[in-house]
Amino acid sequence: MTGPAAILGSVLPYLDWAGVAVFATSGALLAAVKKQTFVTLVFFAVVTGVGGGTARDLLIGAPVYWVHGNAVPLICLAAAIAVWMLPVRLWHGRALEWLDAAGLAAYATYGAAKGLAYGLAPLPAMAMGVLTACLGGIIRDVLAGEPSTLLRPELYVTAAALSAALMVGLLLAGAPAAPAGLAAAAAGFALRGGAIHYGWKLPAYRR
Amino acid sequence: MTGPAAILGSVLPYLDWAGVAVFATSGALLAAVKKQTFVTLVFFAVVTGVGGGTARDLLIGAPVYWVHGNAVPLICLAAAIAVWMLPVRLWHGRALEWLDAAGLAAYATYGAAKGLAYGLAPLPAMAMGVLTACLGGIIRDVLAGEPSTLLRPELYVTAAALSAALMVGLLLAGAPAAPAGLAAAAAGFALRGGAIHYGWKLPAYRR
Amino acid sequence: MTGPAAILGSVLPYLDWAGVAVFATSGALLAAVKKQTFVTLVFFAVVTGVGGGTARDLLIGAPVYWVHGNAVPLICLAAAIAVWMLPVRLWHGRALEWLDAAGLAAYATYGAAKGLAYGLAPLPAMAMGVLTACLGGIIRDVLAGEPSTLLRPELYVTAAALSAALMVGLLLAGAPAAPAGLAAAAAGFALRGGAIHYGWKLPAYRR
Repeated sequence: MTGPAAILGSVLPYLDWAGVAVFATSGALLAAVKKQTFVTLVFFAVVTGVGGGTARDLLIGAPVYWVHGNAVPLICLAAAIAVWMLPVRLWHGRALEWLDAAGLAAYATYGAAKGLAYGLAPLPAMAMGVLTACLGGIIRDVLAGEPSTLLRPELYVTAAALSAALMVGLLLAGAPAAPAGLAAAAAGFALRGGAIHYGWKLPAYRR
Repeated sequence: MTGPAAILGSVLPYLDWAGVAVFATSGALLAAVKKQTFVTLVFFAVVTGVGGGTARDLLIGAPVYWVHGNAVPLICLAAAIAVWMLPVRLWHGRALEWLDAAGLAAYATYGAAKGLAYGLAPLPAMAMGVLTACLGGIIRDVLAGEPSTLLRPELYVTAAALSAALMVGLLLAGAPAAPAGLAAAAAGFALRGGAIHYGWKLPAYRR
Repeated sequence: MTGPAAILGSVLPYLDWAGVAVFATSGALLAAVKKQTFVTLVFFAVVTGVGGGTARDLLIGAPVYWVHGNAVPLICLAAAIAVWMLPVRLWHGRALEWLDAAGLAAYATYGAAKGLAYGLAPLPAMAMGVLTACLGGIIRDVLAGEPSTLLRPELYVTAAALSAALMVGLLLAGAPAAPAGLAAAAAGFALRGGAIHYGWKLPAYRR
């Protein structure tokens, strides 16, 4: 668990690709809902897909992860094509929310781990996970002029915080990165899933 | 006044903590006004608290100031707890505006000084102070879906510009950092305070 | 075409100044439309003028281009003064849209070229051009609380994508930077111009 390679060389990076793919799809989907052109779908896919991870890398002083290869733009392009071409019923209901939930959990977990790997203190590493997990959705909503997902009554930031805190805790306790990452991402996804499906909430400020 | 240490080693850094504390509180307060959960209050506290200083550090090429220790997340957490727990009458009236004014003056002053310390030219250093001072409030308002403080009729950006210009001018004139910082922050706070209390304005564009 | 100097030492940098000047003017103009003060006009000029290029430099790992000299803040100040002083009829009609079109084409072209010069892969270099070209206008619109230019029905992102793709393609094909830059910027500007003047559109998502 010392040095970026030790943590990041293992099974974790796939969480970054997962995050890109699902956030890119959720971005393209929102652009489609807004009746935009294919090019604007791609734009939303890229901005939503790379937003969180880009901010994370800038904040922790890592090179921005997607600019030295063609893979990430291609993933975003594929997401936009899928949204454009596939039958609309696939996207009906809460597809966007579930994709967003998966991206949230993946990025919160991976962001926290990458933060630790780059020498961040535990609390900033947790904050990094939460911030970068929420950022893709925030950017997407702000660009589209939608009310931010952040402000919905069900648990949202809390799910990201659960994944990030669990990941930091497990890694600091010496757990291997792969099972820790899976457990942390699964926990956050389950909590957000409960919020989507059952409307789980925390008490809101009431005075 | 040559080298970061000479300027920043003195009394100035406390302005960064002051900025974090007041912006974090103003962020948590807006989340409370929006009837959010405690976790969302913490999120708004962190994003509003660290937004301006983070952008400043990225732009001037400094390491992001809050990621290598646990202090800043703890300050933001404390701000959210205070907003959540303390009697609501403490926050009545214009508490948020006055906190925002203090954060604005503190960040404009410190941002300009840190810019100079990292070798920026005088005008970009001034711009850095203004941008980073206004950014916390901008992020807070955009996330909450509120009309930006920037666009209110009373003096806002102008107060930040006064603090930043005064700080750059005084440091370039050879003034010691501590009294220069206090004078610059006080002047910007007084101007913004006059705007809040007496409604001071500049003429608006009218054609 | 190897190394930043080889590409950027030539005729291209003037595209950065052009981008700053026109985006700064479009920012100041929107602040004037919103009946803001002169200081707020300057703020909008700076934020809109430097937003795209700043993000580009952070993302590609280049030093932020405008912080070590006084020229860019002065250009933004001049833009704000021009908007404040000049007869309002100069700005009537679609002045803001045409300025935005020029900035869009200039930044898409230059951003893509600078991305290649810093070793980005072709697709990320293209994405960089598009993102940073659109960012000035996005920031301006978000700050002003306006619906984003992105979502208008006519071609917008597409014009930026044309300039960026053409520039990447021409440079990779070995074309000299100056004519490639002029051709790429002209093509994007023409496409966006057609969208403004004739309402050129792509088919929107319709299911």
